[in-house]
Amino acid sequence: MLTNELYDLYRQKMQQIADIKYAAAVLQWDQETYMPAGGASLRSRQLATLSEIAHERNTDDSLWKILDSLSDRSDLTNEEAKNIELSAYDYHKQKKYNTRFVRKLSETSSRAFQHWVEARKKNDFKLFESDLDELIQLKLEEADLLGYENHPYDALLNDHDRGAHCIQNDRIFEGLKTGLTRIYNLIREQPVVDDGFLKKHIPKDQQWNFGVQVLKLMGFDFQTGRKDIAAHPFTINFGSTDVRVTTRIDENDFCNMLFSTIHEGGHALYEQGLPENEYGLPLGEPASFTVHESQSRLWENNICKSLSFWEFYYPELVSCFPAPFHHIPLESFYKAINKVEASGIRTESDEVTYHFHVLIRYEIEKALLSKEISARDIPSVWNENYLKYLGIRVDSDANGCLQDVHWSHGSFGYFSTYTLGSAMAAQLHQSIIQENIAKYVISTEEIVKIRFWLRKNLFIFGRAYTTDQLCKKITGENLNINHLLNYLEKKYLIK
Amino acid sequence: MLTNELYDLYRQKMQQIADIKYAAAVLQWDQETYMPAGGASLRSRQLATLSEIAHERNTDDSLWKILDSLSDRSDLTNEEAKNIELSAYDYHKQKKYNTRFVRKLSETSSRAFQHWVEARKKNDFKLFESDLDELIQLKLEEADLLGYENHPYDALLNDHDRGAHCIQNDRIFEGLKTGLTRIYNLIREQPVVDDGFLKKHIPKDQQWNFGVQVLKLMGFDFQTGRKDIAAHPFTINFGSTDVRVTTRIDENDFCNMLFSTIHEGGHALYEQGLPENEYGLPLGEPASFTVHESQSRLWENNICKSLSFWEFYYPELVSCFPAPFHHIPLESFYKAINKVEASGIRTESDEVTYHFHVLIRYEIEKALLSKEISARDIPSVWNENYLKYLGIRVDSDANGCLQDVHWSHGSFGYFSTYTLGSAMAAQLHQSIIQENIAKYVISTEEIVKIRFWLRKNLFIFGRAYTTDQLCKKITGENLNINHLLNYLEKKYLIK
Repeated sequence: MLTNELYDLYRQKMQQIADIKYAAAVLQWDQETYMPAGGASLRSRQLATLSEIAHERNTDDSLWKILDSLSDRSDLTNEEAKNIELSAYDYHKQKKYNTRFVRKLSETSSRAFQHWVEARKKNDFKLFESDLDELIQLKLEEADLLGYENHPYDALLNDHDRGAHCIQNDRIFEGLKTGLTRIYNLIREQPVVDDGFLKKHIPKDQQWNFGVQVLKLMGFDFQTGRKDIAAHPFTINFGSTDVRVTTRIDENDFCNMLFSTIHEGGHALYEQGLPENEYGLPLGEPASFTVHESQSRLWENNICKSLSFWEFYYPELVSCFPAPFHHIPLESFYKAINKVEASGIRTESDEVTYHFHVLIRYEIEKALLSKEISARDIPSVWNENYLKYLGIRVDSDANGCLQDVHWSHGSFGYFSTYTLGSAMAAQLHQSIIQENIAKYVISTEEIVKIRFWLRKNLFIFGRAYTTDQLCKKITGENLNINHLLNYLEKKYLIK
Repeated sequence: MLTNELYDLYRQKMQQIADIKYAAAVLQWDQETYMPAGGASLRSRQLATLSEIAHERNTDDSLWKILDSLSDRSDLTNEEAKNIELSAYDYHKQKKYNTRFVRKLSETSSRAFQHWVEARKKNDFKLFESDLDELIQLKLEEADLLGYENHPYDALLNDHDRGAHCIQNDRIFEGLKTGLTRIYNLIREQPVVDDGFLKKHIPKDQQWNFGVQVLKLMGFDFQTGRKDIAAHPFTINFGSTDVRVTTRIDENDFCNMLFSTIHEGGHALYEQGLPENEYGLPLGEPASFTVHESQSRLWENNICKSLSFWEFYYPELVSCFPAPFHHIPLESFYKAINKVEASGIRTESDEVTYHFHVLIRYEIEKALLSKEISARDIPSVWNENYLKYLGIRVDSDANGCLQDVHWSHGSFGYFSTYTLGSAMAAQLHQSIIQENIAKYVISTEEIVKIRFWLRKNLFIFGRAYTTDQLCKKITGENLNINHLLNYLEKKYLIK
């Protein structure tokens, strides 16, 4: 068969698999936004069936024959060859899973999600414990299926960020712990920042509208996306032309909505910027969880928590919400949104202490997968570590180990990409400044420039490069945690 | 293999097909409620892939082997044997479709739906015409695939209501036309009813809340269902434990929202009442489109447009909306909501003229499938018939032949079930009265009694009986259009 015919066949198969995968994503989105409680149990089985079908097709011999045959062709373009290489990698990885496992994992995590919602609502970890325990066993089984050199956790880390493993992550987190503790201790010597005015009541509808406005400012395209309410904000897409962000609104915590919306907006810009013509193929997919997180953190922190951004946008905020803000000077607002203060809630924490939250989760996941602890130990280990690293006494499991959705989805190895993504964001941000793309964000035009730069240098490559390769290509060096520490040092300690 | 093992295998296969079918339903629901416009083209292909997969499984040889083997078993329960019989019927029917056709139909109708939305918005039939033309060709192809004795339309009618065909429908519509014209002409001699107060402005939110309240009154379970906004109201379900109704709200047309919500609520009660343990099997499915419509029309018209219902519920309505209604006596309200007046919009029309709307669509569909006319003739034929039957000059295609979503979905043969369903509703209503289930609806308890009666006599049988069989079983005779005429005569002409 001619190469282009064979490649068309490959694309067709991959795009049909994408259809199934994105159909499942619609079901997941609905599950977390609109689905009535009674729909939960059928939804679990519907999702399980879709993931089983996707798995069958991902591991079908006929796909392998096409991939195998295309690997030898010399008349593929570089992009086509890259797609084939990555699809072959995925094929081999998928082959390691069996259908029974895939169905079991999908069913268990759908059920676990429902129980997590209930457990969190009722502040009763026991309601979630046995599902979580089952998920951990499944994740250990998954690590065995995938294979690893040193630690079962390696297999799961690699799954989120190709090439990641414990030894590297341990080193990063060790370096971070030292640097961050130093910075954190120095910040604690500074005068206490007043941020009480951020907790003023702002009605839900007004917050909602401001969130829409900020997404539009960032360049989120509502023609190919939308925003909804969910208990735990997330971004999901069904192709690059249908990207959904979600947010939650607390009427007494405006900034929680604001920065979580910007965070999800960063994820969404990436998805909307992926090449549409590579739908279903690796080059149409994001590079890694770390790179994805670099996009959300770049917008949330480096750009939208900078002084120059608020020099530009604070007047707009004040005009929307005069009552709580008209008497607050810009400088005070800027300090308040950047206040460093230990909190028990990861998503409400500042740029500095945030990484202690990640560290705690990273250590717990590693201990769970080493079987040093089990699900039932999580609340106590969690609470001990919050005391140790952040001096926080956790008041309830709902505000403690039940605060994050991730484990209920069966996501282990995800959290560390938050810190790695922040490091990459700091590294990208430095390039944006050094290359004079947008030295300071002082207008809508600067934002457009940043988005175009990201699109040109990052979005359009899809999965062609790994995290490190992308970092090197864009910034001249591999991912380096020191950029994050330097950024925090400059922001908080150098006047 | 033991019968129960084989039956389990059958159930497992059918339930997985149901998972795929309901996943597609979630995508459809989303497409008509929340999907951003940019998502349309990928959504079409995602739906097409799912319908292709469902079709593959519906027509898989391994399913046939199980069905064939189970048909001979004498140790099945009656219900099990009925499921096997109906699944075998479905299998043979599905076998008549080929994968190419299924994909083509799904893709075309997804695209057509988007173009219909646009065409209607811009009042430009041309934007929809070529898709519609393509759909009609596909429907003719479908009729050929399915086979028919006399008329291609028979195949499509039978698809909505097993056993239905043109000769029977022509006879019904002829009888109806005569009876209805007589009734309509007599009504037109009566004094003109004032219904101006029904068009008073009622804010969207308040209408929304009243809609929720009425659904609750009917017994719609929000634990296993929800309500959303859609351009064209519909009900869809993803199993009997997740049933979604949609509504549209015009702030100056409260009754449109109210009765369309009740209509969809009737559909939804049926879906929520189907036996949960028959998920994915014929006995867990509705009997026919006609029976489905009997449920929506029963609640919308026979129950909720009766005087006794409003004797009970009008005080509640007035207390919710005192400004427009406090000075309107019950009798005037009752007359206004039952006002007979020719309208150009089917969904806004009264119980009498409604069936002229159906008749017009029935005649156009039949003519299209006889190739007497083609898509481009629809606007003129439409407008001529509205003038002929209803004396209405259609002011625009948006308010004319573009008003209904059905054709854009590729639904031909659907409309006539609206009239047949109304006939069945009248027939059921008579039984409800004669059996003293709820002679007059004067309290919430009466409503509960009706719902229980429907559940016991109709819902729980799923697809076990055809429309006629169900009518006979419940009311003692086959579906008979005279019950509708008698009901209308009694309501409008006998004082």
